[in-house]
Amino acid sequence: MAPEMDQFYRSTMAIYKSIMEQFNPALENLVYLGNNYLRAFQALSEAAEVYFNAIQKIGEQALQSSTSQILGEILVQMSDTQRHLNSDLEVVVQTFHGDLLQHMEKNTKLDMQFIKDSRQHYEMEYRHRAANLEKCMSELWRMERKRDKNVREMKESVNRLHAQMQAFVSESQRAAELEEKRRYRFLAEKHLLLSNTFLQFFGRARGVLQNRVLLWKEQSEASRSPSRAHSPGLLGPVLGPPYPSGRLTPTRLDMVRPWAPPPPFAPPPAHRTLPQRPGACAPPPGASPRLPVYAAPPGPPFRPGAAWAPPWWRGRRPENPYADVWDWGWGLG
Amino acid sequence: MAPEMDQFYRSTMAIYKSIMEQFNPALENLVYLGNNYLRAFQALSEAAEVYFNAIQKIGEQALQSSTSQILGEILVQMSDTQRHLNSDLEVVVQTFHGDLLQHMEKNTKLDMQFIKDSRQHYEMEYRHRAANLEKCMSELWRMERKRDKNVREMKESVNRLHAQMQAFVSESQRAAELEEKRRYRFLAEKHLLLSNTFLQFFGRARGVLQNRVLLWKEQSEASRSPSRAHSPGLLGPVLGPPYPSGRLTPTRLDMVRPWAPPPPFAPPPAHRTLPQRPGACAPPPGASPRLPVYAAPPGPPFRPGAAWAPPWWRGRRPENPYADVWDWGWGLG
Repeated sequence: MAPEMDQFYRSTMAIYKSIMEQFNPALENLVYLGNNYLRAFQALSEAAEVYFNAIQKIGEQALQSSTSQILGEILVQMSDTQRHLNSDLEVVVQTFHGDLLQHMEKNTKLDMQFIKDSRQHYEMEYRHRAANLEKCMSELWRMERKRDKNVREMKESVNRLHAQMQAFVSESQRAAELEEKRRYRFLAEKHLLLSNTFLQFFGRARGVLQNRVLLWKEQSEASRSPSRAHSPGLLGPVLGPPYPSGRLTPTRLDMVRPWAPPPPFAPPPAHRTLPQRPGACAPPPGASPRLPVYAAPPGPPFRPGAAWAPPWWRGRRPENPYADVWDWGWGLG
Repeated sequence: MAPEMDQFYRSTMAIYKSIMEQFNPALENLVYLGNNYLRAFQALSEAAEVYFNAIQKIGEQALQSSTSQILGEILVQMSDTQRHLNSDLEVVVQTFHGDLLQHMEKNTKLDMQFIKDSRQHYEMEYRHRAANLEKCMSELWRMERKRDKNVREMKESVNRLHAQMQAFVSESQRAAELEEKRRYRFLAEKHLLLSNTFLQFFGRARGVLQNRVLLWKEQSEASRSPSRAHSPGLLGPVLGPPYPSGRLTPTRLDMVRPWAPPPPFAPPPAHRTLPQRPGACAPPPGASPRLPVYAAPPGPPFRPGAAWAPPWWRGRRPENPYADVWDWGWGLG
């Protein structure tokens, strides 16, 4: 057999072998890994749901409080939003499962037999044609030696068989390459579908979050102004400079800007006048009345709710170097 | 004690109790659930990485094939993109762990003692003042009965003590409310940070995918044109109408449009002329030469790579009702 035909033959057989021994097993493995991937998504969904259910409960407690309803509302909305994202993610998971993994699994099962049979048929056809061609070529040489008068017709037959064989091997090669290509394309297109679904998910998730994050930020800032509810305070200053709104804090994901440090709170003053303990019912005659405990001492103005304690805790306050921890670690805007 | 002061007292104590017995335990629980959530993220990352590593290997095999390099390139790029997304997700996870969970855990531990002490101090201070006030009021009544000449001063003292007490209880209430509010705000702001980080992640992920998905779609469509490599086919038609490019298929996430059915492929013709088996080396004298097997039969033109088999498989082709499975299930555009 001509070496180039032999080369075609080997090349075509190699393709079938590759499909059978590499592609299909790889696809089977991919289905297995894909199911793991799927389960990981589901576990994430569940963990997220449980977490945000807990957030919601805390939010509902805050809604029942006297001064923290806005904050409670934020927490509840965060929980709702998470459910929204979760249900979108569920659609991605369904796509992955229904449109990818199930198809991949089905195809792999069906294909093993098909490719095996295709290869067998090709091999048989090739051998048959090759044998036939060899036989006719031998016959031709014999006729040429004997100067048979039908040599010319035989030669034409042989040429025709040869051309048919050439066409056969090249078309078979082409067909095998196409089978291979179709399989790779199947995989690419299926994952294009998955990528597109993810793309949609990210777009929707971003849309859902974008407005809400700004809203929550404003609400959170608004919560810093003192409540006008009962227990009116003696003073009503705003607790600190309001955060500029409208711009979201850069996150760790923003590589350009480093993490903005939180605005420092005023540290508690080093020492204070001791509160006047109202031990005696009546002031000693002639003594000037002491300042009431709650009056603002000379010095920095009393700011209710500031990190340092109101006056009557002074000198009595439990050691609390970490009173600030609830207020820092956050630089919004 | 005046009922309203008693009410203040109970309200303030209730707030401390709520912080100690509801908020802090809830926060502890949240840290626990948050760690589960975190682990789920990490498991997802790993599962995704393993899956797309497998995709990459298949892609690399395709790159070594003769006609599927474009498709191999797509698969490899998908794998790279996944890594990109994974590393962004890792940043979200770090934010969740470092900026939320760790702080929440630390605060909860520190706060238990602080709130307990604050409550104790308030209780003691309240009782002390209340007892003192009662004592002075009793003294005042006694002096009034005896028509003591210092009654007026005593009355002033009692009034002053009373006013101080009122200020004390209302400021304490306010302080307690503020402690509560600070804790809810801490939670809200921390989760605002998390939401913002997710928002950034979704934005970046969308950006990364958007261009690539379009590119991959074009490349995938381009792969449908027959290769010009070796084994030139007898015919070179395009396999079918090229998909319109530029518009991505709606996914399951697009609720408005239903899932687009795949374009149907032409079914194999019912029957064909049997291939001429080149059994005899020489055609019978006088017989008209039969058409070569590979020539296009009268009827639909032969399309290499179409779902139905090339001519020499006809009548011999293994039963393959599912030859189409590699090509359908995908409607791009």
